[in-house]
Amino acid sequence: MSLLAEKKTFTIPAFQFTCGRTLPVTLGYETFGTLSPAKDNVILVVHFFSASSHCAGKYKESDPLPGFWDSLIGPGKAVDTNKYFVVCADNLCNCGAKNPMVHTTGPITVNPETGKPYALDFPVPEVLDVVNTQKALLESMGITHLKAVMGPSFGGMSSWQWAVAYPDWMDKIIPVISTPKLPIWGGFNPLQYAIRVAKIDPKFQNGNYYGQPEQPEETLHLALEMMNVAAFQAGYYERTYKREVAADKDCYDSVLGEATYEKKLDAIVNISQPFVDLNHWLYTCRMCLNFDVSRPYGGDLDAALSRIKAKVLAIPCRRDILHPADFVQWAVDRITWLGGQAECYPIDSDYGHMAGILQTHLFDEKVRRFLA
Amino acid sequence: MSLLAEKKTFTIPAFQFTCGRTLPVTLGYETFGTLSPAKDNVILVVHFFSASSHCAGKYKESDPLPGFWDSLIGPGKAVDTNKYFVVCADNLCNCGAKNPMVHTTGPITVNPETGKPYALDFPVPEVLDVVNTQKALLESMGITHLKAVMGPSFGGMSSWQWAVAYPDWMDKIIPVISTPKLPIWGGFNPLQYAIRVAKIDPKFQNGNYYGQPEQPEETLHLALEMMNVAAFQAGYYERTYKREVAADKDCYDSVLGEATYEKKLDAIVNISQPFVDLNHWLYTCRMCLNFDVSRPYGGDLDAALSRIKAKVLAIPCRRDILHPADFVQWAVDRITWLGGQAECYPIDSDYGHMAGILQTHLFDEKVRRFLA
Repeated sequence: MSLLAEKKTFTIPAFQFTCGRTLPVTLGYETFGTLSPAKDNVILVVHFFSASSHCAGKYKESDPLPGFWDSLIGPGKAVDTNKYFVVCADNLCNCGAKNPMVHTTGPITVNPETGKPYALDFPVPEVLDVVNTQKALLESMGITHLKAVMGPSFGGMSSWQWAVAYPDWMDKIIPVISTPKLPIWGGFNPLQYAIRVAKIDPKFQNGNYYGQPEQPEETLHLALEMMNVAAFQAGYYERTYKREVAADKDCYDSVLGEATYEKKLDAIVNISQPFVDLNHWLYTCRMCLNFDVSRPYGGDLDAALSRIKAKVLAIPCRRDILHPADFVQWAVDRITWLGGQAECYPIDSDYGHMAGILQTHLFDEKVRRFLA
Repeated sequence: MSLLAEKKTFTIPAFQFTCGRTLPVTLGYETFGTLSPAKDNVILVVHFFSASSHCAGKYKESDPLPGFWDSLIGPGKAVDTNKYFVVCADNLCNCGAKNPMVHTTGPITVNPETGKPYALDFPVPEVLDVVNTQKALLESMGITHLKAVMGPSFGGMSSWQWAVAYPDWMDKIIPVISTPKLPIWGGFNPLQYAIRVAKIDPKFQNGNYYGQPEQPEETLHLALEMMNVAAFQAGYYERTYKREVAADKDCYDSVLGEATYEKKLDAIVNISQPFVDLNHWLYTCRMCLNFDVSRPYGGDLDAALSRIKAKVLAIPCRRDILHPADFVQWAVDRITWLGGQAECYPIDSDYGHMAGILQTHLFDEKVRRFLA
């Protein structure tokens, strides 16, 4: 039986972004377990790119799937909700802005001053802004210290950012499949591409497509497809998709033909596409592209990493092409050299990046021991 | 001093494509070294995706760069032109169709029956068709047997195709950074994406953009950029490009901003873009996407590989994401199991796929010994 999940919302009437602008901001969040009287048993979980605060449990038993890290979070699991109070919030500009179970503020939100969606007038948040919304949520509960911050991918980037920006706030961080500074190569592929394709698509209309007769659905579809491809790896794809010698005749007749394996990926992408807003997707791309904990320190990564007081457990996947394991190892080595406490626990899987989300059995015992 | 290169052309008045259509076809080619009286010292080199038959030497001493495998081909080099007669031809639908030094037939070619470019009415060739144009060229020189067929990437795919289709034609093949069947993952990224983006771009006009006031240059640019990204690897990109904390302010102000490293890649792509025709690029994508030596055997790869009589030296790069080294090793193991003679000589480099083109020092001695 799964944990029972429940979505709550939190509003910050005047949230100041790092860029200086101030707007009202709402976020959905979920909590699991019980907050101790001393409020000293809190673990903040941050979600990945296209997920939401639904990190564990089900809203009702008949839900087809539980939250994204349900295998890791629950009673008796590695992140034991019998011990810990787990908090997870929807990121600013959450991709799934059209999902009624997601509560987020971003380009699709109606600007109270104009009565129209902000579209590209919405400020470009930094990962630090996402962190700051979470900090405001925690403070509203009277929480001022965390056992740990953890999460996969964007959630790992946020964990790094938390530890650098607010070093006294937590005992530990567990960045999974993520580096403290997005590698340039992983940025092009698939984030920069999505932005480039939107610029080519006339239906994108510089982000002002809301209410228009034509929507930039092909660009959104390709953006989602690119993310799926980059998040997995060649071996996984070869096992999962198949070349169909007879059925793929179209591809031998026309340069624009579609193979059966492409149609299969289309079908997978079509499941989530109705819930995703393209501007929100691109804003999340941009937050990742800009992610670099060293930015406030003039690009000096040592200056940023030396601020970390938390014990660090970094968990990369050896076949992850977006946040390569050797980049993570390098950051961990650097922290150790600077006098911090950090360890790297690489996993290996042909799921690539997605191993950090879908294959928690590869690292759950390590997480349990690290948290204890 | 470099070898002197010279471009020649060869025309097949009625070339029959695998799909059944028959058209006149012209190809440029270059030769190096001297054909022996017995015509028994020939090595066929096949070029990679966006290259041409200019595989070695310079047209004149002042050329800024020699042919793409000049470090491997020449007097005293691993492919020793004092011993071997090297032939290299422009592939059908060569990407560089607008380069006056490339001679190829494809969508940009004027259809003699209509007086207009074929555009997407050009038949979709298979890698086997490229092989067949090369075979016709060799036969026109009276050559009926090869010491070896070799090449990187598309050239390696062609080497596999040669060995399966015409097993008695050669003693050896050296497929570099290539598998006998394009991995599905490597197909999406970056080949399938280029086709998808073209479909989104209204300037593409279903391939009929010739002579139109607006040209699909943004799509072409992105396609070239995607190829550059996929052909290298994260470490190479991190060394070569740089995040500029101050200069990249645009990216913090606008979701559509461009980072300095993106502009640097733009500049690199802009050098080759004027010579590339988008339809030719997409046709070459399609040839790669469709590449599978097992297709004529109902998808039975063993049936295809068991036809190979040549000795095989396969050279993958461990950090190649397009033709992963473990896929190549698997093919080699399979050939050995089937009774053939094959060996795998993996190289390692953070150039990734491009190591097979730019870092021939990692395998040139191995090639020399294998050919001897």
